[in-house]
Amino acid sequence: MAARLLPILLGVTFCINVNANYTDPSLGPGQRSQDLLQRLTWEEKIGQMGGIRAAFTSVNGTVRFNRSAFEEIRLKENGQIGYGRQANWAAELLPIMNRLRMEQINSSRLHIPYIIIADSVNGLWFSGGTLFPGTSSMASSWNLPLYEQVIQASRDENMAMGINWVLSPEVDIVKDPRNGRNGEMYGEDSYLVGEFATKYIKTMQEKDERGFYKVATTIKHFVFGTGSGGINRASMAGGLNHILNDLAPPYQKAIKEAQPLSLMASYSAVDGVPMSVNKYLLQNVLQDILGFKGLIMSDANAIELLLNTHKVASSRKDAARKALSAGLKHELKPGGGGLFTELSSMSGDKDVVALVDASVRAFLEIKFATGMFDLPLPTIENMQSTLRNPRHLEINKNITRESIVMLKNDDEFLPRTKSNISATGKIAVVGPYADVINAGNYAPVVLYDPRYGDSFLSSFQKVLGKDNILHAQGTSKILPNYDDDAQQQDEAAIAAAVEKVKEAGLAVVILGSGLGNFMPNTINNDRTDTEGWSHPDLGFPGAQQQLLDAVLDTGVPTILVMSSGQTFPLPNSTFNRCRAIFHSWLAGEYTGSSFVEIFLGETNPSGKLTVTIPEHNGAFPVNYDFLPSDAGGGFGTSLAYDWHWPQLTRKAPLAFGFGLSYTTFSVSSVNVSVSTNAASSNQSVAIQATVSNVGNVSGKEVLQVYFRANYSIIERPVMKLIRFEKLEVDPAEKKIINFDIPIDELGYFVTGDWVVERGNYAFWVGTSSRYEDLRRVELVI
Amino acid sequence: MAARLLPILLGVTFCINVNANYTDPSLGPGQRSQDLLQRLTWEEKIGQMGGIRAAFTSVNGTVRFNRSAFEEIRLKENGQIGYGRQANWAAELLPIMNRLRMEQINSSRLHIPYIIIADSVNGLWFSGGTLFPGTSSMASSWNLPLYEQVIQASRDENMAMGINWVLSPEVDIVKDPRNGRNGEMYGEDSYLVGEFATKYIKTMQEKDERGFYKVATTIKHFVFGTGSGGINRASMAGGLNHILNDLAPPYQKAIKEAQPLSLMASYSAVDGVPMSVNKYLLQNVLQDILGFKGLIMSDANAIELLLNTHKVASSRKDAARKALSAGLKHELKPGGGGLFTELSSMSGDKDVVALVDASVRAFLEIKFATGMFDLPLPTIENMQSTLRNPRHLEINKNITRESIVMLKNDDEFLPRTKSNISATGKIAVVGPYADVINAGNYAPVVLYDPRYGDSFLSSFQKVLGKDNILHAQGTSKILPNYDDDAQQQDEAAIAAAVEKVKEAGLAVVILGSGLGNFMPNTINNDRTDTEGWSHPDLGFPGAQQQLLDAVLDTGVPTILVMSSGQTFPLPNSTFNRCRAIFHSWLAGEYTGSSFVEIFLGETNPSGKLTVTIPEHNGAFPVNYDFLPSDAGGGFGTSLAYDWHWPQLTRKAPLAFGFGLSYTTFSVSSVNVSVSTNAASSNQSVAIQATVSNVGNVSGKEVLQVYFRANYSIIERPVMKLIRFEKLEVDPAEKKIINFDIPIDELGYFVTGDWVVERGNYAFWVGTSSRYEDLRRVELVI
Repeated sequence: MAARLLPILLGVTFCINVNANYTDPSLGPGQRSQDLLQRLTWEEKIGQMGGIRAAFTSVNGTVRFNRSAFEEIRLKENGQIGYGRQANWAAELLPIMNRLRMEQINSSRLHIPYIIIADSVNGLWFSGGTLFPGTSSMASSWNLPLYEQVIQASRDENMAMGINWVLSPEVDIVKDPRNGRNGEMYGEDSYLVGEFATKYIKTMQEKDERGFYKVATTIKHFVFGTGSGGINRASMAGGLNHILNDLAPPYQKAIKEAQPLSLMASYSAVDGVPMSVNKYLLQNVLQDILGFKGLIMSDANAIELLLNTHKVASSRKDAARKALSAGLKHELKPGGGGLFTELSSMSGDKDVVALVDASVRAFLEIKFATGMFDLPLPTIENMQSTLRNPRHLEINKNITRESIVMLKNDDEFLPRTKSNISATGKIAVVGPYADVINAGNYAPVVLYDPRYGDSFLSSFQKVLGKDNILHAQGTSKILPNYDDDAQQQDEAAIAAAVEKVKEAGLAVVILGSGLGNFMPNTINNDRTDTEGWSHPDLGFPGAQQQLLDAVLDTGVPTILVMSSGQTFPLPNSTFNRCRAIFHSWLAGEYTGSSFVEIFLGETNPSGKLTVTIPEHNGAFPVNYDFLPSDAGGGFGTSLAYDWHWPQLTRKAPLAFGFGLSYTTFSVSSVNVSVSTNAASSNQSVAIQATVSNVGNVSGKEVLQVYFRANYSIIERPVMKLIRFEKLEVDPAEKKIINFDIPIDELGYFVTGDWVVERGNYAFWVGTSSRYEDLRRVELVI
Repeated sequence: MAARLLPILLGVTFCINVNANYTDPSLGPGQRSQDLLQRLTWEEKIGQMGGIRAAFTSVNGTVRFNRSAFEEIRLKENGQIGYGRQANWAAELLPIMNRLRMEQINSSRLHIPYIIIADSVNGLWFSGGTLFPGTSSMASSWNLPLYEQVIQASRDENMAMGINWVLSPEVDIVKDPRNGRNGEMYGEDSYLVGEFATKYIKTMQEKDERGFYKVATTIKHFVFGTGSGGINRASMAGGLNHILNDLAPPYQKAIKEAQPLSLMASYSAVDGVPMSVNKYLLQNVLQDILGFKGLIMSDANAIELLLNTHKVASSRKDAARKALSAGLKHELKPGGGGLFTELSSMSGDKDVVALVDASVRAFLEIKFATGMFDLPLPTIENMQSTLRNPRHLEINKNITRESIVMLKNDDEFLPRTKSNISATGKIAVVGPYADVINAGNYAPVVLYDPRYGDSFLSSFQKVLGKDNILHAQGTSKILPNYDDDAQQQDEAAIAAAVEKVKEAGLAVVILGSGLGNFMPNTINNDRTDTEGWSHPDLGFPGAQQQLLDAVLDTGVPTILVMSSGQTFPLPNSTFNRCRAIFHSWLAGEYTGSSFVEIFLGETNPSGKLTVTIPEHNGAFPVNYDFLPSDAGGGFGTSLAYDWHWPQLTRKAPLAFGFGLSYTTFSVSSVNVSVSTNAASSNQSVAIQATVSNVGNVSGKEVLQVYFRANYSIIERPVMKLIRFEKLEVDPAEKKIINFDIPIDELGYFVTGDWVVERGNYAFWVGTSSRYEDLRRVELVI
């Protein structure tokens, strides 16, 4: 059916009133938006303040488009439209969406087009595009130029589907290992998050040859990181210094360097004030202090929560008015029934009118700036040549190779050559995450489809031959409610896996969290991670640890691969007995094959942790950049105090920035000095270091620079990342790296003011945040 | 030696300059303090700003008094003196302290006496007094009149030792179950904490017949509750609404109703600003908003931490000056070398001079107000008749009986009569906490001394006969570093305990945390709780859970008693298989005997939880008064969302206010209405309810009232305690309880302003914070 409609739609130029200034592409988006605003009725204005994010839903490959439900929403909320999350494939979706867009243009009085808004984490949020790994994976590459290529590819695939506005990047900081959304985040360090997010925004918002932004971005969620209990929507204690110094740096950088066109407010009540009504943080802080100029939108259903959950609104109207007054300019409400539609009864209130006008003007400006009034709808041909094009797949392979982090490799147990594998016998690839692509919630729902590339298991089978690979899932399924029956099933499954391991000479055990029992129709009921989930136990869900223990008890050499957006504390008995340990994070379609390349030494691992792995179930927070007083447990016995039983310190060994390689790098000739620009007389810190590959194979290393001032007005972290660069070094080769850090970047906020200390500083240069991997240099600034 | 000095000291009247106004007892403390201040040299002023909190230390019963070390401190820091924590007994200590006090009076130019400052949690901080249970225990009684008797007794014992200033009450709120100091706190609810703390202050600060305060109090630690990682000294995120609404209510109430003479700042950096330099919180919030007028002191060594840990001071002088400017007026530094001594070089700085004058005036005022210049030193005779006098011991028994909380009692398994015990056979009293008095850190160090009353084990032996009681410790010891050797020892110890249990017909298993391997000389190295300790695992330390599982596996009916200031999540297999479960908190000398009374039905348990017990290791915070949005995990599926795996909600069943009795109470005829005072026209909420004992034995119940407004400006908790009363009801008896709650008490702070909502409210009246134990009434105010 979709295919038959196609010829009617393609190549159609918009039919719009040529007398209106807003139709004049030679004018700027601001002028055009202002002109169009004046022509709108009150109802038409309110209509632009909402939309239909999930225009149609589908299950098991069949598009379900409910015309009457759609129309009911469309009449009142018609600013944007979205595909939502789809089981359908791209080729089916595009013609239908094009038809809906044409209908809207033709049916609306002033022919105002939709703009398509979409989530975009692993690429497209439905099938048919290149499936990139999750955000935590790509950040683990620490490779910004490669990430730029990924975002270019993702951007072009989104545009090929008509998507010109994405609900990314997510710059929330990983502060609580329980939070089931951690895999959607770049990591625990605000500088690293800011670097990746800024790269994302610049790349998505690149302008085309006509000066239109390719894809508008939405930096989010302002502000989140420390929700109570590791829960996505939960409250935060607030505090301006905390917000500005610990959570806001990615916003600060992105706003200064990349101007994201929009921003999403978080669900959290910060210091009791839900962000959707938090005028202080949205205006005084975000706009006045951080300089944000773009459009602020709600998170999905957030305005309704003011009434039903937070109870800080007395009615739907009250909620709408408060959110508008606080600074929200657009409402996301996937299911329709948006609360901003209540504003339609407030046309007599001049404060509301002024705010609505400002909101609609800002919203239309994005539509003009992205060419929605001027560009043709996307064609099937372009879609076919863009989605999954060979270059995109190659980019995907490249970033995936660098996103897997090797945490242990006893006595160079890896890589295995094909000859020592055949000597050992077969390989048992076991565990519930062995034969699945565990890509995260904001990935397409049909990852069980074989067109999506290979799991760990199928990658091993393809490369080494099916006959050489044994497999068992090892646990029956990962149940949220674990009962006696499940336990019996698990015991049987573990016994079966142990038999396979004994038959093989080597075990690769793939454990994790994310998907549940892998049935797509129950995906939300049986999963353990993502939005809405928090891990009250940081261990592997279900009987996975028992499976691993049983495998290790066999004495067969074992490699552990973690698959998840979460981190898992590894008991000593696990860490010591596994010959090699990896974290593969949230998978893209090449995660399995990349791992097999690493296993065989065809790829040298170069990923680095962007989050510190806790050492014990409740030993958190563990971010490397803790405050010194957070590590002082008691009676002044120094850093070694802290969590006192068992004896743990904040400096967990599997720390931020850590990751192993098959070669060895040496950092030497570290020089740190203050330099002054002759022209501007601005001062900066000049850092030079030499990185040598003293091992036998080529590899990539991430040189990292950390710092702290010896004195500050408010307490500051023990160290903070300030620069990093990934570089490839051949054996016996040396590379000299230079960093230049303007002094102003060393500052921090005190009650909203930016302060830069003069005096004694320490800088550390090296290959992880662990003191043993760093060289310390003192400097007076 | 001490005894020989005694006659010289006793009865000596102070020799002071009679020409000075400050010596005139008819003048008020303010006038006398001002007069004395004018006579002091700069060095003498600085001397009053510090002291010697631990004048001498002793180990294993031998006083160690180092004269030269003492003199070195005394010359510069001589405002107060303290016993410190002692292994010595009271009768040995008093003569020595009296001598030091007399020396000070005689050797100082203006004959300014010391005041003795002491920690006082379980009563005296050294041996010889009545050993009351810990704060968490006494709060669990919910019995304010009884608590008042305890504090009267504790006050009189302190005074008998010359102690006129205590470093209590601790009004920190239990927010993180990992925090090893939770046992020192009253509980998780700010209203309950405020009630107990206010009672404490009023009772300690009662005036004698001459108008002198008996004992000055120190409300502390302003402000603490949510330190990162559950660590005592760690940072807090801050936020004014959070601080004022969640943490400050006990201060608000105590300041308004009981005027504590002093307050201790917490160690925490709040929003990056350590409390010792937090002028905003100490002045704008504590003084301006909360109205505190007393003296603010540092926590022990806190000013030094500004330099060495927080690094917000550039030198000792800088630290001293900043702390003074922020509002600190006195320094606690037990080991000497206080940073306020640095002020001696700043006599030319008029800001410092003004602040020092204000500080010394405030400090001297407390000395005058407590009679230090006018009252004789305490006598040995008074000490002998006061400490452990029969009335104090009786009060101690009474509060202990009410402080044990019964959490489960399957099919009225308890009480056991002596006849059904002999039918069953012997009783095995096992576990590492069976034969110890686990009283907490701020109890005397020599609790192994048999003069301290009875453990659980010895109580059972005394009442039921040694021959009827079997015992095994069941685990070797509780090690911070658990290695293979310890595991083997534990396995043997568990096996031995299981044999005892099998031989007996009934097992009482006493598990917990606090003391380590019970060797006094390593008490700080081997314990798991108190200041400086945080539990990264909420389970029972060491192999205790394995011991319990092994006992339960025998099938012998088992009673579990928890002994600790901490809470422990109970796995289903524990909860379901134990026939009865208790929490005994931090023990006083009668905890064992009280438990045996309960076991035999001679005492009907009436304790109620003041903290909610988490359901899983990482499922926290669990306070009953969470914000509604903290329970909303994800996609709007209501309160049942939350921690999603395993399925847990914030409403844990072993909730705040819950505790069982041997009888059954019924709450009926609940009436809630608004009443107006005819004279003042002030409105209040009048609540009436009837409590009936529908069981067979007399018992005590705690009637509890909770409330929330249906709408508020900022997000407010799902419910808040607003009144409670403990009452005794005989079988078939009914009691009618009335509460009157001024409307103003229903308010909350918004950015420092007190707001009281008008509109719809819900009130709940019943016997715990669990919805099933409450009756809900709607009310329009």
